[in-house]
Amino acid sequence: MSEPISTNPIPGTRDFFPDEMSVRLQVFDTLYRVVESFGYLRYDGPMLEPMELYAAKSSEEIVARQTYRLKDRGDRDLVVRPEMTPTVARMIAARAGQLPLPARWYSHPNLWRYERKQRGRYREHWQVNVDVFGTDSFEAEAEILELCAEMMFALGASTEDFLLRVSDRGLMQAVLTGYAGVPAERLLEVYGALDALDKVPEEETRKALVAVGADADKVLRVVGSGADELFALAPAEALAASNVHRALTAGLATSRPVNLKFDPRVIRGFTYYTSTVFEIYDVDPRNPRSIAGGGRYDNLVGLFGKARIPGLGFGMGDVTLIDFLETHGLLPAARLAPDATVVSPQLEQPEDRARVRRIAADLRAAGLRVTAPLEARKMGKLLEKAGKEGVRFAVIAGADEAARGAVKLRDLGRSEEREVPLADLGATIRAALQI
Amino acid sequence: MSEPISTNPIPGTRDFFPDEMSVRLQVFDTLYRVVESFGYLRYDGPMLEPMELYAAKSSEEIVARQTYRLKDRGDRDLVVRPEMTPTVARMIAARAGQLPLPARWYSHPNLWRYERKQRGRYREHWQVNVDVFGTDSFEAEAEILELCAEMMFALGASTEDFLLRVSDRGLMQAVLTGYAGVPAERLLEVYGALDALDKVPEEETRKALVAVGADADKVLRVVGSGADELFALAPAEALAASNVHRALTAGLATSRPVNLKFDPRVIRGFTYYTSTVFEIYDVDPRNPRSIAGGGRYDNLVGLFGKARIPGLGFGMGDVTLIDFLETHGLLPAARLAPDATVVSPQLEQPEDRARVRRIAADLRAAGLRVTAPLEARKMGKLLEKAGKEGVRFAVIAGADEAARGAVKLRDLGRSEEREVPLADLGATIRAALQI
Repeated sequence: MSEPISTNPIPGTRDFFPDEMSVRLQVFDTLYRVVESFGYLRYDGPMLEPMELYAAKSSEEIVARQTYRLKDRGDRDLVVRPEMTPTVARMIAARAGQLPLPARWYSHPNLWRYERKQRGRYREHWQVNVDVFGTDSFEAEAEILELCAEMMFALGASTEDFLLRVSDRGLMQAVLTGYAGVPAERLLEVYGALDALDKVPEEETRKALVAVGADADKVLRVVGSGADELFALAPAEALAASNVHRALTAGLATSRPVNLKFDPRVIRGFTYYTSTVFEIYDVDPRNPRSIAGGGRYDNLVGLFGKARIPGLGFGMGDVTLIDFLETHGLLPAARLAPDATVVSPQLEQPEDRARVRRIAADLRAAGLRVTAPLEARKMGKLLEKAGKEGVRFAVIAGADEAARGAVKLRDLGRSEEREVPLADLGATIRAALQI
Repeated sequence: MSEPISTNPIPGTRDFFPDEMSVRLQVFDTLYRVVESFGYLRYDGPMLEPMELYAAKSSEEIVARQTYRLKDRGDRDLVVRPEMTPTVARMIAARAGQLPLPARWYSHPNLWRYERKQRGRYREHWQVNVDVFGTDSFEAEAEILELCAEMMFALGASTEDFLLRVSDRGLMQAVLTGYAGVPAERLLEVYGALDALDKVPEEETRKALVAVGADADKVLRVVGSGADELFALAPAEALAASNVHRALTAGLATSRPVNLKFDPRVIRGFTYYTSTVFEIYDVDPRNPRSIAGGGRYDNLVGLFGKARIPGLGFGMGDVTLIDFLETHGLLPAARLAPDATVVSPQLEQPEDRARVRRIAADLRAAGLRVTAPLEARKMGKLLEKAGKEGVRFAVIAGADEAARGAVKLRDLGRSEEREVPLADLGATIRAALQI
């Protein structure tokens, strides 16, 4: 006999068993509801995309070092998508001229990156992507930041639990080139060095900055400065052109106050961001991390040779989000048990089991989640199992009661039992469960 | 300047724009609701699996000719999953001994096969997978067939629109070996030849049957026979052991009558099926096709070296399902428009737009899907656009009305307008939309 096959998923990936899946479904349903409340519409695209889609404007680290690449049987160079923005930009470009703008879109793809294994990183993760296309207005920034905040509030977070950290590559460019001597054509390298600030010794960052011809002291002063200091270093026309600055000045219309802060240290990895960049940041010292990030990318749709259509959006990944909810005690409980299970003291005969299944079918038609036994087990065993699994109601469909059109309804949570006419059964259970 | 990148998805795959996505989401939400009404719990697994997971018991055609294979950066042989059953069997095996049985599970993965391009086939498709594990009882078959039927009814299909076609490899084996002279060790080849009956000339099938040492006339008589004829050819012990035969005899407990038929021509492609096989079949002559298929696989979980845990389940793919719904006029309409949009005759000043966004935020908090303009457009244009997009309500938040705590509520469907106090706005719209 051959070796048994491993029951593990491949390294860096996860199986979602029903208990974990139930938690995730509740969390993401909440997010979908918030996103849709802003009028965003869901879309989806294929899991495999051509290599060239990422070659141009994505993150070099991701494309060169982290993609899952393959050749298909037609010899095409394909990539398991590492991010969603190139796909959505491609789709928007495909409908340019037909789509009413602004277009508000969202999706929930799984994405693959060959990451080093570490906390908060997996090779497959699920990400809610939210984007608005076709407007240069700063109110797009305001709406997207409001949406981020409402997502967090809907998940149970309070104002104090998170920070919206925003920055603007346009403003930063003006200050880094005008004040800190960074040559314009080397800005992306500077962003790269600054994005790694938390991960490498400062000395290494300094060397990288000097290598591109920048004044390292001044660059580090810029990224270390607060909003007012940075704004004071910026030329007036750069400030006036900054959507982030205008959104900060106007404030957000949210259901609760939001901590919103301009922070020059927000860089974000993707090279396609043109001005606004932002992230949702967990302020808890046990989990000091970005849990969503995004920005404005005004030139990505144009790569497809169509009209310029600016885009602004963000992605929120499942791993860091679930960590945030866990850290703050906000994870919902798994919902696994059905509303009711139908049993009987008589299950030996096929007609007994048919009666049980018929009642289960009627309850399902009444909108309830209901199981019936698949095997002729003793009723005591079935009730014990149902109780252990957290099933609230057992419907006891004995032959005697059935003969007079009734069943016993046992509330397993309260150990109460009473006879209920079959005709009232669905409504009785629904009322008790408040559905 | 370089060539623009193509806006098309790779061959054989689809982009789902919001209009198509909305239809799909409604269809699949209906399916989820039915599956969950039977107490099935959702799970998920990774999109990439090790090659060895499919090497053993899947379909040779799929593994050898249709898989998308790759080597990851750790030199592992991976496959973009072509089907879900090996993954779920792996997961059940991983929890063997801890899971309460029977385990009722479902998922909705995307699957990849490098198919020839033809109607009803794509290289990426989405499939609802429903499985029950841990029982040999024929009532598992009854439950799964009931669930199939209720899915179809919930989508709007009538009894006449579809057929549940069932067969049993155990019964077929008894008849094919006992009556038609097929050597037991060549049964899989015979199933393969019979599975292709509709696709190749009969002469080719006959040659294939003779080549394995079978009596081609008798084999073709068996697959061409009706239920009664086939049951008459079967040994009594094979009939008594057949879950399909028992389920047919007992009948199904469904909300409406179901056309359920034993048909020896139902083979299904996977080699892991051990007895029951079945499919949902579209009886419309314009679309005479299987739209879901499955069976019993009693030995798959055992490949992982754990206890024998029998499984029974099916997959329903999106492509054939959407074709079925289209053929029968059952596709739901796309839902794209938000419930309301907030506009104002004054939008020039940031404080006007702030007022508009604040009202939009309040309506969202009341559970409505609401948009607000991102740019200072003329109100007439905004109302015209909203009307075209099918938005039901426009909230006109002019400065005058706002000063007295009110707005104008315009029903764009009926061209009615009236003043509503801000405090009543959310409830008024909800009542009109019956939500």
